[in-house]
Amino acid sequence: MLGNAESLIAAVKFDSKGLVPVIAQDRATGVIRMLAWANAEALRATVAKERATFWSRSRNELWEKGATSGNSMKVHDVRIDCDGDAILYLVDAIGPSCHTGATSCFFRAVGKDGLATDDGPARINP
Amino acid sequence: MLGNAESLIAAVKFDSKGLVPVIAQDRATGVIRMLAWANAEALRATVAKERATFWSRSRNELWEKGATSGNSMKVHDVRIDCDGDAILYLVDAIGPSCHTGATSCFFRAVGKDGLATDDGPARINP
Repeated sequence: MLGNAESLIAAVKFDSKGLVPVIAQDRATGVIRMLAWANAEALRATVAKERATFWSRSRNELWEKGATSGNSMKVHDVRIDCDGDAILYLVDAIGPSCHTGATSCFFRAVGKDGLATDDGPARINP
Repeated sequence: MLGNAESLIAAVKFDSKGLVPVIAQDRATGVIRMLAWANAEALRATVAKERATFWSRSRNELWEKGATSGNSMKVHDVRIDCDGDAILYLVDAIGPSCHTGATSCFFRAVGKDGLATDDGPARINP
């Protein structure tokens, strides 16, 4: 239980489909693992269970990340942006996060010869 | 000029408004500065000029971050996710990124007593 989910939900400006984009970032490495979507129910579940939960737009159902794959995300912090239309989950990610097996879903980068594929962004090393 | 913008744009699944969500992350600290939106023109400008450029949904115009405020973002890397519906700009951010003056737009976090305000997520310290 991270805190008061209703105060978060009251501050969210959901889109016309009742959804808000959610960034999931691994707090150990800084790597952005994925961007998915949440409805109010998904935000409530995330805050209550401390497991990253989204709304699957393709399956039209609540989706606790890793419930089937095992590649779950323990949520440490849930943040909302200034205008209330984006959410950030800071997580401890178990295993790779992309369904392709890549660490991050952002495993393609713009290069001279088109998109270059890797395992995702490099870890942050300040 | 970061590379081939057209190969990126061909891979993007823009929404019904011709937009895609874009995460801007400071690569020095790992801090996610903001989430905004881009159309094809904004992506082209970002790749060509290496300056984070978005589409302002409120002003309905192309928006080079910092063009008026000075708080610009030099873009080091442009990435696209597995299903082509989210973009990541890895940037060197100059100054704070939020219009409120906060370093990050994600300056509110869920807490026991509601939303707690700070300057944004902590820098990554692996």
